[in-house]
Amino acid sequence: MSDRATRVIEECRKIATMSEEQGRITRRFLSSPVRDVHTHLRSHMEALDMTVRVDAAGNLRGLWQSSPSSGKRWLIGSHIDTVPDAGAFDGVLGVVLALEWVRMAKELSLPIAIEVIAFSEEEGVRFGVPFIGSRVVAGRFDRGLLELRDANGVSLDAALRDFGLNPEAISDAAADDNAAGFVEIHIEQGPVLEAEGLSVAAVNSIVGQSRLTVEFTGNANHAGTTPMSLRYDALAAAAEWISIVEKHARATSGLVATVGRVQVKPNAGNIIPGSVELSLDVRHARDHERRAAVEELLDAAQSLADRRGISATWTIKMDEPAVPMDESLTSYLADAMEVAGLPVKLMQSGAGHDAMVMAARMPTAMLFLRSPGGISHSPAEAVRVEDVEASLCVGQRFLDRLAAEVR
Amino acid sequence: MSDRATRVIEECRKIATMSEEQGRITRRFLSSPVRDVHTHLRSHMEALDMTVRVDAAGNLRGLWQSSPSSGKRWLIGSHIDTVPDAGAFDGVLGVVLALEWVRMAKELSLPIAIEVIAFSEEEGVRFGVPFIGSRVVAGRFDRGLLELRDANGVSLDAALRDFGLNPEAISDAAADDNAAGFVEIHIEQGPVLEAEGLSVAAVNSIVGQSRLTVEFTGNANHAGTTPMSLRYDALAAAAEWISIVEKHARATSGLVATVGRVQVKPNAGNIIPGSVELSLDVRHARDHERRAAVEELLDAAQSLADRRGISATWTIKMDEPAVPMDESLTSYLADAMEVAGLPVKLMQSGAGHDAMVMAARMPTAMLFLRSPGGISHSPAEAVRVEDVEASLCVGQRFLDRLAAEVR
Repeated sequence: MSDRATRVIEECRKIATMSEEQGRITRRFLSSPVRDVHTHLRSHMEALDMTVRVDAAGNLRGLWQSSPSSGKRWLIGSHIDTVPDAGAFDGVLGVVLALEWVRMAKELSLPIAIEVIAFSEEEGVRFGVPFIGSRVVAGRFDRGLLELRDANGVSLDAALRDFGLNPEAISDAAADDNAAGFVEIHIEQGPVLEAEGLSVAAVNSIVGQSRLTVEFTGNANHAGTTPMSLRYDALAAAAEWISIVEKHARATSGLVATVGRVQVKPNAGNIIPGSVELSLDVRHARDHERRAAVEELLDAAQSLADRRGISATWTIKMDEPAVPMDESLTSYLADAMEVAGLPVKLMQSGAGHDAMVMAARMPTAMLFLRSPGGISHSPAEAVRVEDVEASLCVGQRFLDRLAAEVR
Repeated sequence: MSDRATRVIEECRKIATMSEEQGRITRRFLSSPVRDVHTHLRSHMEALDMTVRVDAAGNLRGLWQSSPSSGKRWLIGSHIDTVPDAGAFDGVLGVVLALEWVRMAKELSLPIAIEVIAFSEEEGVRFGVPFIGSRVVAGRFDRGLLELRDANGVSLDAALRDFGLNPEAISDAAADDNAAGFVEIHIEQGPVLEAEGLSVAAVNSIVGQSRLTVEFTGNANHAGTTPMSLRYDALAAAAEWISIVEKHARATSGLVATVGRVQVKPNAGNIIPGSVELSLDVRHARDHERRAAVEELLDAAQSLADRRGISATWTIKMDEPAVPMDESLTSYLADAMEVAGLPVKLMQSGAGHDAMVMAARMPTAMLFLRSPGGISHSPAEAVRVEDVEASLCVGQRFLDRLAAEVR
């Protein structure tokens, strides 16, 4: 279909071979294949006449500008770390596409400056804390994080030094005031665009998220000798509540609520469950909707537990507010879709991204590409040539618009 | 309250000290403390002028008769093996009470013969197969079981020989034609008698049991990026079904149905469950009621899975018919309660017992004693002095009746 789109996909597949594991894509923060990715991307950047550096957090950053200037600069990028046994596109696609956008800007001699950033850490796999790369660029890095240790007991401080970086210089890596905004291109990691038959969408908000554990405690008893009327079955209570969670989320526009983890005790076929611990994950683009949902679901848990003569307790593990994308920058993306002849689609992101962190520092926008089958964090992760081409068409109009701002 | 009832409880507590583990009651089939129990019970039996032997399956058997005779003989007993970390009464109480019944028969010089049996194996802990002791006495022992191996790789054949027994002679241990019937006395192991404020009950049937595993399979997806309308959530389906199981059992007299074990995959808070495997345990005293319930619940699983666009599959692991107790012998127990001035209570047993195996060979009856808190298979297992006394009062009238048959 499109040579450039095919080239983008091949490039992602090539980078996918740079892995910690034979036959699987696993590339954690500051692992050895990250150097290979840096070397590979650096040569591409240099071929595009970009000025390349690796900052103190291990972010690879390439600056392209039409002519030497100290004027404003657009940051475009995504991350190059992966989860274990990952797909080839989550993160990497956004970096490779950013370089294609630079190629277009260069070919069109657009009067803008673009800094492509390959963030070093987003997934939170190695140190249990995500967005380390973007935190540094956004100037939101807490130096206490340098004490974090990975599974082998290596501290973040030591890991940075081992990679040849200087943790003392981390604050120098923060974006300066010339940074005008940030754009992230990323696969959707969900089924919405596929269900609607669309190639791309602009993200208008990254949802807020509540995470809780809820525990129902009844009495473990013999499954044969305890009549139904004398039971205090924690699992029957949990099941009733899981159905309430599903029903409430289905009835509330834009809300997703998930019970994903269940731990039953004693978990034997012939014993009535004495206790059940559940996870609850609730997300919505409007924080008050999300918090109202959590409150209603906890009320329901309490009331069904009371009716059953058992107990319900809970712990709130996370209460992260939603992050809206920049209205103006997002409207540029929407306009670009329209000019490119694509349906204009705005949607929320149900997952966190570097864009969420960058939005605290500068105007930020995000472009999603359809995920075939909604599949992500899996070797089956894919992207369609036609959707990559669509994103490039959008990119060209978007860059035109940014360039027009300068003129 | 009652000296003899207090003595029975003390005797059970004494036997409880004969354990494989310090501070916990664990006495598996043919383990070393079984010898101590045999020595202890043998001396009691001999003091009651009983003729004592250990049969080829390790069952301790003591025969008492008013005068030498080759006439019919009543078997009374229960088991002396335990689960790990057991209580002091499950099984042992039935053996100790049987000896008190013999004491009464002796004091009253009743013209009957009683063989007290302390079954060697009922719980199925060591070799994974229960009722080994009663299978042998009932003449229902399959010699293929001698090949069973315990967790240390020791075969049943070798374990019997190590204990000084001769597996070749197992068939000689079967009850002969003089055995007129079997009576087992046992704690209820459930909350029914306590809920009704009763001391004892005669068992009219041991319930039949179905065991199944049911698996719901949907699609594992991202909890944030997958809208409710595009989910195939295996846990939401499982929860709906668990509620149907509970509702159906509550609405069906005498039925108990339990989902006790749940395995969710991948079981992570931020991933919609892709598959859920559940256990189902269904029991009823009438086999057609039980089988109809299983059929209805599986139909419901299939239909909710179809509606949700996911799959439901199942495997039937057990389909054991109910075992009715002997009507005539059970009516003797009921009459004995009435004569003793106790409320006449008949109930089903929701758990399996040696009586279930013996009933295949001879008329069999069972007497339950209230379980405080319904607790069993736990160090908190208990029995009340007043209930032990009640069981002795019933025993005396019951033995009178058996003696009257002979006259």
